[in-house]
Amino acid sequence: MAETQQNQQKFPAVQGGGSLIVAWQVKGKKILVVGGGEVAAGRILNCLNADALVTVISPAARLNPEVAYRVAEKQITHIDRNFEPADLDDPAINMVLVAVDDPAASTTIWKLCKEKRIPANIADVPPECDFYFGSVHRDGPLQIMVSTNGKGPRLASTIRKFIATKLPRDAGSAIETVGRLRVKLRQMAPDPKDGPKRMGWMTSVSDAYSWDEMCGMTDEDMNNLLRYYPSGKVPSIDVLKAMRGNPDVSQLDVFDGSFGFSVGA
Amino acid sequence: MAETQQNQQKFPAVQGGGSLIVAWQVKGKKILVVGGGEVAAGRILNCLNADALVTVISPAARLNPEVAYRVAEKQITHIDRNFEPADLDDPAINMVLVAVDDPAASTTIWKLCKEKRIPANIADVPPECDFYFGSVHRDGPLQIMVSTNGKGPRLASTIRKFIATKLPRDAGSAIETVGRLRVKLRQMAPDPKDGPKRMGWMTSVSDAYSWDEMCGMTDEDMNNLLRYYPSGKVPSIDVLKAMRGNPDVSQLDVFDGSFGFSVGA
Repeated sequence: MAETQQNQQKFPAVQGGGSLIVAWQVKGKKILVVGGGEVAAGRILNCLNADALVTVISPAARLNPEVAYRVAEKQITHIDRNFEPADLDDPAINMVLVAVDDPAASTTIWKLCKEKRIPANIADVPPECDFYFGSVHRDGPLQIMVSTNGKGPRLASTIRKFIATKLPRDAGSAIETVGRLRVKLRQMAPDPKDGPKRMGWMTSVSDAYSWDEMCGMTDEDMNNLLRYYPSGKVPSIDVLKAMRGNPDVSQLDVFDGSFGFSVGA
Repeated sequence: MAETQQNQQKFPAVQGGGSLIVAWQVKGKKILVVGGGEVAAGRILNCLNADALVTVISPAARLNPEVAYRVAEKQITHIDRNFEPADLDDPAINMVLVAVDDPAASTTIWKLCKEKRIPANIADVPPECDFYFGSVHRDGPLQIMVSTNGKGPRLASTIRKFIATKLPRDAGSAIETVGRLRVKLRQMAPDPKDGPKRMGWMTSVSDAYSWDEMCGMTDEDMNNLLRYYPSGKVPSIDVLKAMRGNPDVSQLDVFDGSFGFSVGA
């Protein structure tokens, strides 16, 4: 009993009623969009932003201007007719998004998708959805998705815009920098055995600098920073700046543990 | 040409390189978690927060304390051995999450999942993932997921915490209120034909009040607010407050278009 209580305090309590929010990887994968109206246009943009191969099925006369534009620009493939069951025969179809004003047709497509185990979303019909969409803020590699779990789609969009005003201006660019540093580090220390050390050091790096400092980091700074990895240390931004253009910096005693303090002097 | 340029300005540009972020619906659905370490513990909590039925497959000796606690509390089902291919035979399995330190075993499970078209995530092996996880803020019905698309998992967590400090204190509760209002409205005006009118009015309502005002709304306020729906109008919060406990409010001229201004007087 005492142990159970201790554990209840120690481990996070379950908060049911949410969704499992995931970043689906659809680069180069086929997504079928049935319908070509305003909702379909939003879905299509989401898919293109994730580098999916999108095919839209809809009579040309019913394409909204944005969808028609993306067809004309060859951003997406267009099948100029209503949906037919054979459209799902391609085993490479990764996902199906339906946005048509025809509940009976929607339900038929949903059932076919379930038979074939293809993840599907029927717009505005929650029981016929493997997943919902939310409101997504995008800044380079950064994506922030706001879901109200169907309670208030408009509020989701309001919250997304509110968050966008609060984020550091260069958040996306700072994340790019960290991403490049991770790649460089993996090239320098590729051994899978070093995984925990790499992860630990990257965590220290992520915590050591402000957004602004991260954004201002040059390739030279990153290369200098990486020289600290073997020691597990992370220098201050002032130390990194002092190292710029200083080819003799390796002569300094910054890599022996006393690290950094003499460099800026 | 001129038209193309106009359209380029009119429609959002595609920003490739992102993920398709979706809120997966797993309530009452079976999710298999292979492995019982720290990463598995995080995945399991995500799944339980989304009301999934979780089965964890791992020798008992390798369960981390949190996973062992959730098994003991019967929050999840436990199969006390290593993974076997027959574990995937149940057609009700909705998703498979693998977090074991065994790349060969992981790859085998990934391939089996793909044969059976079961969405899967092999932790730390991006090419063997249909989807990635991110860092999720949770406040009742509100979920905010931060993804750096693999560039900086630590930064994702930093950004999530940063956002949490900026959000209005009662965001989750305000969303609950709006959700309840939507349900009441659908009961009052259930005709599917009224969908656009309902959606338009809910949008006006969502835009009309501050978070604080939304949170403070009582059931009586909501019922009074709903009386404005037929007119398509939305009263100020002061008007709603003035209506409290006033059974004769329907006598006032607030529903005829001149709406609201006399009520607070």
